[in-house]
Amino acid sequence: MIRVVVIGAGMVAAHLLTGVERIKRGLEPWGVPLARYRLDKAIEDIEFVGLYDVDVRKVGKSAYDVCKELLGRTVPVPETLKQLRVSMGIHLGSLRGLPVKAQGLEEFGGVAEAIDRLVDEFSGFGADVFVNVITTEPARAFETIDNLERAVESGKVSASQAYAYAVAKYARKRSRRVAFINVIPSPIARDPAFVELYRRSASLVLGDDGATGATPLMADILEHLAERNRRVLSIAQFNIGGNTDFYALTLPERNAMKEETKTSVIEDILGYSVPHFVKPTGYLEPLGDKKFVSMHIPWKTFNGLEDELIVNMRINDSPALAGLLVDLIRIGASLIEKGVYGTCYEVNAFFMKAPGPRGSRNVSRIVAFYKMLDYLRKLEIVQ
Amino acid sequence: MIRVVVIGAGMVAAHLLTGVERIKRGLEPWGVPLARYRLDKAIEDIEFVGLYDVDVRKVGKSAYDVCKELLGRTVPVPETLKQLRVSMGIHLGSLRGLPVKAQGLEEFGGVAEAIDRLVDEFSGFGADVFVNVITTEPARAFETIDNLERAVESGKVSASQAYAYAVAKYARKRSRRVAFINVIPSPIARDPAFVELYRRSASLVLGDDGATGATPLMADILEHLAERNRRVLSIAQFNIGGNTDFYALTLPERNAMKEETKTSVIEDILGYSVPHFVKPTGYLEPLGDKKFVSMHIPWKTFNGLEDELIVNMRINDSPALAGLLVDLIRIGASLIEKGVYGTCYEVNAFFMKAPGPRGSRNVSRIVAFYKMLDYLRKLEIVQ
Amino acid sequence: MIRVVVIGAGMVAAHLLTGVERIKRGLEPWGVPLARYRLDKAIEDIEFVGLYDVDVRKVGKSAYDVCKELLGRTVPVPETLKQLRVSMGIHLGSLRGLPVKAQGLEEFGGVAEAIDRLVDEFSGFGADVFVNVITTEPARAFETIDNLERAVESGKVSASQAYAYAVAKYARKRSRRVAFINVIPSPIARDPAFVELYRRSASLVLGDDGATGATPLMADILEHLAERNRRVLSIAQFNIGGNTDFYALTLPERNAMKEETKTSVIEDILGYSVPHFVKPTGYLEPLGDKKFVSMHIPWKTFNGLEDELIVNMRINDSPALAGLLVDLIRIGASLIEKGVYGTCYEVNAFFMKAPGPRGSRNVSRIVAFYKMLDYLRKLEIVQ
Amino acid sequence: MIRVVVIGAGMVAAHLLTGVERIKRGLEPWGVPLARYRLDKAIEDIEFVGLYDVDVRKVGKSAYDVCKELLGRTVPVPETLKQLRVSMGIHLGSLRGLPVKAQGLEEFGGVAEAIDRLVDEFSGFGADVFVNVITTEPARAFETIDNLERAVESGKVSASQAYAYAVAKYARKRSRRVAFINVIPSPIARDPAFVELYRRSASLVLGDDGATGATPLMADILEHLAERNRRVLSIAQFNIGGNTDFYALTLPERNAMKEETKTSVIEDILGYSVPHFVKPTGYLEPLGDKKFVSMHIPWKTFNGLEDELIVNMRINDSPALAGLLVDLIRIGASLIEKGVYGTCYEVNAFFMKAPGPRGSRNVSRIVAFYKMLDYLRKLEIVQ
Repeated sequence: MIRVVVIGAGMVAAHLLTGVERIKRGLEPWGVPLARYRLDKAIEDIEFVGLYDVDVRKVGKSAYDVCKELLGRTVPVPETLKQLRVSMGIHLGSLRGLPVKAQGLEEFGGVAEAIDRLVDEFSGFGADVFVNVITTEPARAFETIDNLERAVESGKVSASQAYAYAVAKYARKRSRRVAFINVIPSPIARDPAFVELYRRSASLVLGDDGATGATPLMADILEHLAERNRRVLSIAQFNIGGNTDFYALTLPERNAMKEETKTSVIEDILGYSVPHFVKPTGYLEPLGDKKFVSMHIPWKTFNGLEDELIVNMRINDSPALAGLLVDLIRIGASLIEKGVYGTCYEVNAFFMKAPGPRGSRNVSRIVAFYKMLDYLRKLEIVQ
Repeated sequence: MIRVVVIGAGMVAAHLLTGVERIKRGLEPWGVPLARYRLDKAIEDIEFVGLYDVDVRKVGKSAYDVCKELLGRTVPVPETLKQLRVSMGIHLGSLRGLPVKAQGLEEFGGVAEAIDRLVDEFSGFGADVFVNVITTEPARAFETIDNLERAVESGKVSASQAYAYAVAKYARKRSRRVAFINVIPSPIARDPAFVELYRRSASLVLGDDGATGATPLMADILEHLAERNRRVLSIAQFNIGGNTDFYALTLPERNAMKEETKTSVIEDILGYSVPHFVKPTGYLEPLGDKKFVSMHIPWKTFNGLEDELIVNMRINDSPALAGLLVDLIRIGASLIEKGVYGTCYEVNAFFMKAPGPRGSRNVSRIVAFYKMLDYLRKLEIVQ
Repeated sequence: MIRVVVIGAGMVAAHLLTGVERIKRGLEPWGVPLARYRLDKAIEDIEFVGLYDVDVRKVGKSAYDVCKELLGRTVPVPETLKQLRVSMGIHLGSLRGLPVKAQGLEEFGGVAEAIDRLVDEFSGFGADVFVNVITTEPARAFETIDNLERAVESGKVSASQAYAYAVAKYARKRSRRVAFINVIPSPIARDPAFVELYRRSASLVLGDDGATGATPLMADILEHLAERNRRVLSIAQFNIGGNTDFYALTLPERNAMKEETKTSVIEDILGYSVPHFVKPTGYLEPLGDKKFVSMHIPWKTFNGLEDELIVNMRINDSPALAGLLVDLIRIGASLIEKGVYGTCYEVNAFFMKAPGPRGSRNVSRIVAFYKMLDYLRKLEIVQ
Repeated sequence: MIRVVVIGAGMVAAHLLTGVERIKRGLEPWGVPLARYRLDKAIEDIEFVGLYDVDVRKVGKSAYDVCKELLGRTVPVPETLKQLRVSMGIHLGSLRGLPVKAQGLEEFGGVAEAIDRLVDEFSGFGADVFVNVITTEPARAFETIDNLERAVESGKVSASQAYAYAVAKYARKRSRRVAFINVIPSPIARDPAFVELYRRSASLVLGDDGATGATPLMADILEHLAERNRRVLSIAQFNIGGNTDFYALTLPERNAMKEETKTSVIEDILGYSVPHFVKPTGYLEPLGDKKFVSMHIPWKTFNGLEDELIVNMRINDSPALAGLLVDLIRIGASLIEKGVYGTCYEVNAFFMKAPGPRGSRNVSRIVAFYKMLDYLRKLEIVQ
């Protein structure tokens, strides 16, 4: 059994919760990368024990009700989710500027008290793995545990950082090895402060920013071109969607968080820099969670001529990330059992747009996949 | 120095000849896959010593004149190509149905005599590497050397097979290790008859059907999807162009040659079969050598939802293949020096749509690329 | 009230029947071209009185059951369709080569008897408008009523032609003005024989081949280019889908029927001929009724430079045609009341790929639309 | 003879000048909308007499040198352009924020003096038609001639407005009917102040913002959908390019100028508002003048189902606009001869994204085209 707490009760959480429950009832595990392989932990081992949010319309409701509202017209929502309730989380302005009435635990005391309250709740849940899927927020790395602790005391942390700090505190206090999985752009696995904090309690942080959507495909296409020594001339990648994350990304300081994690991959793979325009481009409510992506890549081929490639996609954003999380939860749980702590580049390199630790090189996803498989096989996590 | 004979003086040959000569004069080697690596043989080591065709308008002309006519409006044609002349090759109906007046050596005696004449000419050239880039032709495998030899005697071979046989005979007669590189769909490297024939003279055949255009990219995209366990529902891949090969492929028996090499990759990579429509779709003269490709791939993602991908490309068909040939020539020459003979799966797996030997599994191109690099590094062909 | 007989109980019929019943119950009439205008006849006036097919699994079933099987997973099927039953129609090989067990009335006597039986049934229904939506079939024009009558006697007519003949006979026998709407490629409205036959009984035939999908959009895009005097260099239009009609169109003699109606538009609009590849390209069962279309159009712009346009679509084939039929039924019923007979170019020019009568010029759809509106306003069919 | 002054010596001007000169020498007039029709004025009647810019690297050079630098690698530049020299124009900050060293006449005295100097120069040229193709600038309408004149006195006008004012002054002073053609977004033809100012001297202003690129095509596609009553759900239109105008449009206040003219068309054609994202999206220098466009339009079709359309284009931005200018110059010259003054909606409606006068409705381009033809035929400008 893997006891999982999900932070952020939005679309990704809704797909993760309903998807896992539906797989337990027989749905094919499409979209779960390693479902074709035999893993140490089965999908059926995943049990959701906690769920946090700060949207006042969600706090106190059952996961069933939240999923029903978000997904009810798209997929059947299993009744088992009636057991799980949305607890109030930490806000810290993480939804500022968004059209949501939010309230966080820190408003009833302060950040330190809110964190202590979370630590108590996590203990009650007996949680092993924490998944962070809150909306993209502005945040910057702390570099050292000292800086981080000072920031926590003065309340100058982002919500993700407060959660990650609370989880580490819980691990230390309960002498429990845990995994914190961060699939949003906030620097956690690439902040030396958090990696060191988790290492000290023999725990693990995986992150940052789950590699779904257009950027992993772009990475593999660039690898394809690089292997033929085609000279990429420019890269345009437009993304537009209608979910909360796209709305949030129309706010410049949140957009900046995303652009960084999306473009670092280009030079890493090609070996040279290329003029590019790669970012979440806009918000169109009717597209909902199924974003539209358009990419344009021209290149010089042999004998000086020019080719070009256009990719258009319609991608369900949240299920793609939820599918990755199913494996990240299973792998995270296995890694802590095997004694891996701090962070784990081999796993991050495949699953994350900005793989920690800091300074790690991006490789194409296909290359990362086989390296990860080798690594997990050596640890006997994958057969 | 690598002494190269090119069979088929069409667009691919024209790009290969002009491109290599231009690189010798300073053009960047874009489109040559391993140009970024340090190889045993330099591009500058390539010397073209022979060129064959059966189009009566080409035979006897200089390579310069042929390239000028085919490419003169697109790229500058180096004067050095005035030294090389088009010799008459073997026809055997390889251009039947195409709007070209053709004449082959076999019309002046018979197939066996034509082959002997070629052997003599090859000896005069002192050739090491042979490149087969004639137009797609109908052909089937012979399985055994006996069958092959009987077919040669009775003249029931395709032009490619006759050339490959002549090259093997030349190798045996001159005790010379040679490489025959087949980048059209005719089964040579995946015909046990030819692999055995070349093995006997310590020579090497590489093939079949150079992996350019849409299919290698499709292979890498399918690998990308497979690694995320996305369930591909169907695959459509349309190709349309205006070069001779597209014209030839409007003839059903030639089209069938191509469809086989294009679709074997699907099940190999996904692990299951998928309804697909993948073939050269039509001929549109104004598109010339720059074909238009359209691909459509829908799939099931996590939680039962459906995504889809559309890829559109404009690709210069012939330069892409010519770029691969630059490396195949260099690698072929090195492999025979290192004592590799028969055929070489590790190299074919990356460069060919239908990699020999028979029964070889297709893997995604990105995976094949790194395996090939490892292999060539062990042999000290790549540093 | 407009009493309608639908011939062919496939996807188009299923969408027409369920769509109209759902609109009666409040569904917005999207996809019905003139729903924004005030017409003489309301959508609610349409009453379906007869439904014909030759598929033995359908004959005798209720329209509800047939629609449920074809569309049940996509849309709710109204219970009112339980009143309508599928009658056995005329086969005449119209499904030959398709994976369907078919049986027609003519197998119980002969073509002439079958036609008489239909005339009796039509009389029983008191039908006004007939809609022909059977699968694309091979057929050629008869030119004169004599030829047509001889062909009927000897049974050498296609199913559509037999139906159209039966409807004309019914009109004559009952002295009733009727409209026959042919939205498949068989030449009816562009066969002088049928136009004359209908004129003689003051009745009307509209056709041929409903203008849905990619070709009408292509026509308007070509008009757009022509108005800017951009020189179109080539046109590629690929279509692939998974419904019965796409399956039928993999059979060459049926495909030829379609190509003709799709390409006549090009020269009519541009004023010059252009190399083109425009046809139903293949069959991919998983795409179902939602076809994938890809178009590529390059052109010369000012100062000798070249632009290009790529269009990709996912289109529900049958609902698009069903939407047109809602208006064709209403307009057809009004036209016969207003005394229009023979055929009606103004209406065909907008609704049909191959507008009758024979020799009519294709104009862009946008131009045809406004001309039709003017025409219908003069007749006070549209306010 | 039509004596033309071109304001702004950038890419559009370069294509206009070289294109017209090349047409005089035999190049086909592709991209000139009415070249297929017989107009009152021939393309050969166009004579360029003046050319203005504020880029210090251009002022004083010949048009030949400027065109050679901008287009020399793409098209041959006729020697006749050596006669025409770039005069210094008015700057007024119109290039502020762009990487160009600029200097304007107003820096040697003031705005009023600069305008007088221009009036003198225009008199020297004996000019009839003025074409404004400077880079997109921020500007707002003045509404009344009083406001406009006060702004001119205090120097608070944009460069385009200063030019338009100078041209009107020239017309009044010389009692000469002239046409001012504004194909950038600044409000001239839709500013009642300028329309009235021109009316008073029996002159004509045409504008605003030439309808090239993706938006006119989008308009015709929306008309196509509206005529089928398909319910458009959302519209995304991305544009990215590498010319100065795209660079300028990365500056927010210039981008806003463009977005307004691009989106007004949507509601005008559909009759309802639709969530949309339609704007110049980014700057990618390697794309140069050949921009990449991506559009995505989903809609509801009949029976409640959903279709979608994706359009991708590579468009040479400047030649498209230059082609329109050839006709605008010819039509403008004829209109003033026929006594049309103020502005001319019938012509603007086809040629302009934001057709003046203020409050004019956008119609689809195809509809506008035929209405304009009728109008010009009545005036005997087109036969």
